[in-house]
Amino acid sequence: MAETDADVASTGPVETQQGTAPGVDVEGWTCPMPLRDHDRIVAGHGGGGKLSAELIEHLFLPAFGPAANGATPTDAATLELGSSRVAFSTDSFVVDPLFFPGGNIGDLAINGTVNDVAMLGAIPLALSTAFILEEGLELAVLGRVVQTMGRAATAAGVQLVTGDTKVTDTGDGSGLTVTTTGVGLIPDRVELAPGRIRPGDKVILSGQIGDHGIAVMSVREGLQFGTDIASDSAPLAGLVAAMLGTAAGPGVVHCLRDATRGGMAASLCELATSAGVGISYVERSVPVAEPVRSACSFLGLDPIHVANEGKLVAFVDPDAAEEVLDAMRDHELGHQAAIIGEVVDDHPGIVVARTGIGATRVVDLPLGEQLPRIC
Amino acid sequence: MAETDADVASTGPVETQQGTAPGVDVEGWTCPMPLRDHDRIVAGHGGGGKLSAELIEHLFLPAFGPAANGATPTDAATLELGSSRVAFSTDSFVVDPLFFPGGNIGDLAINGTVNDVAMLGAIPLALSTAFILEEGLELAVLGRVVQTMGRAATAAGVQLVTGDTKVTDTGDGSGLTVTTTGVGLIPDRVELAPGRIRPGDKVILSGQIGDHGIAVMSVREGLQFGTDIASDSAPLAGLVAAMLGTAAGPGVVHCLRDATRGGMAASLCELATSAGVGISYVERSVPVAEPVRSACSFLGLDPIHVANEGKLVAFVDPDAAEEVLDAMRDHELGHQAAIIGEVVDDHPGIVVARTGIGATRVVDLPLGEQLPRIC
Repeated sequence: MAETDADVASTGPVETQQGTAPGVDVEGWTCPMPLRDHDRIVAGHGGGGKLSAELIEHLFLPAFGPAANGATPTDAATLELGSSRVAFSTDSFVVDPLFFPGGNIGDLAINGTVNDVAMLGAIPLALSTAFILEEGLELAVLGRVVQTMGRAATAAGVQLVTGDTKVTDTGDGSGLTVTTTGVGLIPDRVELAPGRIRPGDKVILSGQIGDHGIAVMSVREGLQFGTDIASDSAPLAGLVAAMLGTAAGPGVVHCLRDATRGGMAASLCELATSAGVGISYVERSVPVAEPVRSACSFLGLDPIHVANEGKLVAFVDPDAAEEVLDAMRDHELGHQAAIIGEVVDDHPGIVVARTGIGATRVVDLPLGEQLPRIC
Repeated sequence: MAETDADVASTGPVETQQGTAPGVDVEGWTCPMPLRDHDRIVAGHGGGGKLSAELIEHLFLPAFGPAANGATPTDAATLELGSSRVAFSTDSFVVDPLFFPGGNIGDLAINGTVNDVAMLGAIPLALSTAFILEEGLELAVLGRVVQTMGRAATAAGVQLVTGDTKVTDTGDGSGLTVTTTGVGLIPDRVELAPGRIRPGDKVILSGQIGDHGIAVMSVREGLQFGTDIASDSAPLAGLVAAMLGTAAGPGVVHCLRDATRGGMAASLCELATSAGVGISYVERSVPVAEPVRSACSFLGLDPIHVANEGKLVAFVDPDAAEEVLDAMRDHELGHQAAIIGEVVDDHPGIVVARTGIGATRVVDLPLGEQLPRIC
């Protein structure tokens, strides 16, 4: 498994970031490598980190031109279709191996897109499924994946309404990738967007992080280290509905983001940038299962950068944060929800973690991904 | 390039189809090979022919279970979202080579999905784009494809609103696949569906067939035969709007289908089956460019099975067929539109072609595809 992103990181110049707020610890800050220094795709371009962001900014947006309407593409878009507000999101899945503890590429593909739609507060309704299969793939493998997709869709309350299948003659016959696209209806009064995040907002994390990444890693060739960690893949639309349905009303929830590729850190960094706010959280408030913490320690990873498939971060009005937190803890996918930090006026665009010894450190968007082909 | 579908066809038993109407010529009829005789994916499973249909019927639908709602997935679905009727469609593109006369994978991906949405009479509004790239792909290649997508989207009047990029470490570094999913708004009074096709309806073809398939084939390794045929890739939403906008009203157009994988023959066969009607057309009425006819003759192909990317077949009330035809001919993408046949009471589910010498032959859904990786 090529860890190209790590190679790239080690060859990149390390510079002090310009324009950071005074007093911010810039240790470990990596200067994003300009796209023009690459002439080929590397693994990190698909990792949801800086290289992905650069590919969007320097290649996709200029090349799409007016068709992209100048907007930075996000995980999900809001469309005005007639009198309806519709959430619309797509994701491709290139997981290796296809099957891992707690799930397979099938439930990832359903839950991943359901969750992107749910993060806009929408009720997911319908999904499309587009498969690219390699010649020689065993039908039994495809059948197991598709069966899992059917069950996951039923569990998430979405219909699989249209699809496509293509076959390639490249590869070794084990390849199965799937792209799911979802639509959902955004209820009246619900408006979730980075632009609604305000200083003072509480940051709530819905549960323990790192399970999915470590579950996949545990079955990767050469990385077996015997853990009983299972992927946390789950549909979050029900949890979101519970959060929006408190007596405080949906308006107190300002923004949601599921913490997938790049982990919780990537979600917080992206939102700090797009909302133009600082985010500060307390490291010891972040729930991490002990086996995940051990595996991360063994592998030299930070759990905040490891992928999840059933966790979200929420930005909530401080006056209603406890009420929303209670609603989350009453839901089966939010038992371990915790307020981990808050939005601050200082250091806009920067995420800082307060460590156990009272220091703060800057949390940076990873360059690529710690583990390719994870979702 | 593996032509696995041809191998499969040659090993399949040739039997007389049971239950065909008396008097139908069953020469050349191939018994669909049951899925249970395969245990692995072959190229034809992605070809849009019988093998694709079997994969849907015998694997996808049973495995999806209730999530598929018992409905056979089609190229595009109609969703009721609030008070809006929305067309929703997805397609993956695995074209080899990426660039060919008249276009590249980028405009195919935009136009293909725009057209699937337009075939429901919808006005295409927004598309998502999901890329799966191989490590080592030249950014310049990606850039050219993406630029083409931007121009094609602008030409088709759609916005590219959300997307995803994943990178794989398999393959030789030349791989680029893209999945586009589109949504469009279906105007009031527009209802296009196979169930509206009636005996007596005229069958209108929007222009000459086979250009795309022959254009791609002409640049395939080992298949160069020097022709100036360019792909017909084009967005058909404007042509559809012209057809629905005649004084006769949108109701006279009963059903539309773009003739892509599997060619015009696959579109007619699928609609004859799903509408439960017979279709009869006159071979010499079908426009085919002379270089395409020559190339097909040289390769032993029938143009009716060769892929198109900018042609549709329409089923229109006979009293309004001339008016709709005139509207098509006034549109730049319909100059060569022609009434090629009609829907008949006889032989439900069967398509027959009337040949130049007055005979009729049964037109069958191809088993796989004549040319893999064409769209």
